Amino acid sequence: MIYLDNAATTKMSETSIKAMLPYMNEIYGNPSSLHSAGQTAAQALNDARERIAGCLGCSAREITFTSGGSEADNQAIISAAKLGERSGKKHIISTAFEHHAVLHTLKKLEKQGFEVTLLDVHENGIITADEVKAAIRPDTCLVTVMFANNEIGTVQPIAEIGAVCREKGVIFHTDAVQAAGHIAINTQEMNIDMLSLSAHKFHGPKGIGVLYARKGIPLSVLIEGGAQERGKRAGTENIPAIMGMAAALEEACRNAEENAKKVSAIRDRLIDGLSKIPHSVLNGDAENRLPGNVNFCFEGIEGESLLLLLDDKGICASSGSACTSGSLDPSHVLLAIGRPHEIAHGSLRLSVSEENTLDEAEYTIKAVSDVVELLRGISPVWRDLVTGKKEFVIK
Amino acid sequence: MIYLDNAATTKMSETSIKAMLPYMNEIYGNPSSLHSAGQTAAQALNDARERIAGCLGCSAREITFTSGGSEADNQAIISAAKLGERSGKKHIISTAFEHHAVLHTLKKLEKQGFEVTLLDVHENGIITADEVKAAIRPDTCLVTVMFANNEIGTVQPIAEIGAVCREKGVIFHTDAVQAAGHIAINTQEMNIDMLSLSAHKFHGPKGIGVLYARKGIPLSVLIEGGAQERGKRAGTENIPAIMGMAAALEEACRNAEENAKKVSAIRDRLIDGLSKIPHSVLNGDAENRLPGNVNFCFEGIEGESLLLLLDDKGICASSGSACTSGSLDPSHVLLAIGRPHEIAHGSLRLSVSEENTLDEAEYTIKAVSDVVELLRGISPVWRDLVTGKKEFVIK
Repeated sequence: MIYLDNAATTKMSETSIKAMLPYMNEIYGNPSSLHSAGQTAAQALNDARERIAGCLGCSAREITFTSGGSEADNQAIISAAKLGERSGKKHIISTAFEHHAVLHTLKKLEKQGFEVTLLDVHENGIITADEVKAAIRPDTCLVTVMFANNEIGTVQPIAEIGAVCREKGVIFHTDAVQAAGHIAINTQEMNIDMLSLSAHKFHGPKGIGVLYARKGIPLSVLIEGGAQERGKRAGTENIPAIMGMAAALEEACRNAEENAKKVSAIRDRLIDGLSKIPHSVLNGDAENRLPGNVNFCFEGIEGESLLLLLDDKGICASSGSACTSGSLDPSHVLLAIGRPHEIAHGSLRLSVSEENTLDEAEYTIKAVSDVVELLRGISPVWRDLVTGKKEFVIK
Repeated sequence: MIYLDNAATTKMSETSIKAMLPYMNEIYGNPSSLHSAGQTAAQALNDARERIAGCLGCSAREITFTSGGSEADNQAIISAAKLGERSGKKHIISTAFEHHAVLHTLKKLEKQGFEVTLLDVHENGIITADEVKAAIRPDTCLVTVMFANNEIGTVQPIAEIGAVCREKGVIFHTDAVQAAGHIAINTQEMNIDMLSLSAHKFHGPKGIGVLYARKGIPLSVLIEGGAQERGKRAGTENIPAIMGMAAALEEACRNAEENAKKVSAIRDRLIDGLSKIPHSVLNGDAENRLPGNVNFCFEGIEGESLLLLLDDKGICASSGSACTSGSLDPSHVLLAIGRPHEIAHGSLRLSVSEENTLDEAEYTIKAVSDVVELLRGISPVWRDLVTGKKEFVIK
């Protein structure tokens, strides 16, 4: 199996599994308990918090553990909104190509009287700090812009956006689920006020994530109950997963440069090879993109058929986000960068990890080329295109 | 170490760990992905859902996976409240000794205009179906009563309360976090409409739980985002933990009778031995209690000192709920059953699992007796009691 869907989820690393196991049946106490079994777990929890803070350039007190990226996004946005509401600020700025954990939370807030400005995204999949600056109003309480896009991998100018928000006194949240562990993040240097991440995107366990919130930003409680996480997130702490996440994040950050070099070489080979397919186009910026992200549209075919035939050849790929793959609608991300409906349907995302090889890339280029040719051979849309009945969108 | 804090959390069983491991680095796909790695994970997810439904006497479609018991409690109560609100029903019935995941959610709803009746609990820690019936009003939208109490272990007449609620057409939710895996639960036979459980209370993994909601009860979304869990709970499914939970619950249900027999023998020996300590009292009903729950008050001592000295003797115990152990307030559960403040402070909870032994019980009885005597020897309160300056509360 050639696994090229690392943006959907990753295989857990040996390091991460090894870090989890002792907390399942040896150091299994509840960190809220006063006895030594509990206190040993509490020490591990503190230690993990410190180590994760170290990776993000913040202090341990600014880290709240959640059940994953979606919960962290929800809690961050709701917290900033509620804080803004107290001083009459009910305007939020975001972009049209955020993850649904952000977009749907914003929709919920709109129903509560918040106004949301979704910035248009350029064809290269990037927004600028100037555009954010121009959209900020006196009643803006939050700017939320994803660090790197989950479909087309474009990396936003986060430090510049952070500087603009800091200057204007507006809270800046970034969904860093795709970026964390893959590209360097320093919350302090980048003026990030709030950040969400998820461990299973960097070879850590599923079901665990982090919400970083700068000191002084009070969190609203999403899950009420016990006093865990300083009263801001109830529920017995998931110590095994937290230990697995800390180990995975440290490993990812330690090896980030080396991994990026290896992964981007495979990515570049894939982009180069797939670009040779006629009437294909790379989605997202060629430069400012995640080391592991490849995303193409191929005219005249359906993404779903492409995936199924690639699967037959042992290649795990996706057409876009796994979170929306049950939906028949074309990707809102591809629509946001201006791809027309019929093109957005024929998309392919390959997301590379450091476990992939250049040989796999060669095999994949050949497989995709063959499958696209096969599908075009039986596609009525393609026939119309080549006979001139319809015009090509991708030249 | 003698671990007698199984109500706080349990050691994961070999069965549960073994069920998790393959899903960490072999079958690690995202179940939303269309390729075979994703679909294999999706099949596992379906299978786990079926098996868990089987343990609870409901159908797989009625099971929603959450990050644990607290999240399930929050989502259940909010869902029923929002549903009631639509038809103008904004009255909720609960009890004074629920877990804070329930009580704090109810507080939040009170701020939103809901009216909450908290039923008084009798000294034996039990409420009756008749009391629930008497409290139901035409505008009651929800009755939420815990299956078994987390501190004093009393088991409520759930089937009778369920029958009353069904008769009156009111949704009945039960927080079964302490009961699931320990005593038989059948949602259909017991007329339970909604139920919460948490895997780490029955030797499963932390960070995973279940919200059962009877067909026809629409869930409100607590965590917005992707379309996982039929659009009712966003976030990549935590397949390893779900597989671990399914295995743990099946094992617990399969062995429930045998475990209960073993565990209750240890419990009864502990109750018998500790009752011999002068001026001690068992909290909660002697009959209707969890097989593994022991909870005593000892007059004239502080629970915290008792725990620390027991810890020195290798015994992990608690004074009440782990979720509230950071708090200096006496247990709201003990206050609810009528224990005065000064007595509630001197409480000890021992929660037994099938891994404990009768020898451990003997050692623990001796240790608690010695420590209580030691603490009373240095307690000014105790001096006042024995010299007659104060009157004993516990005769």
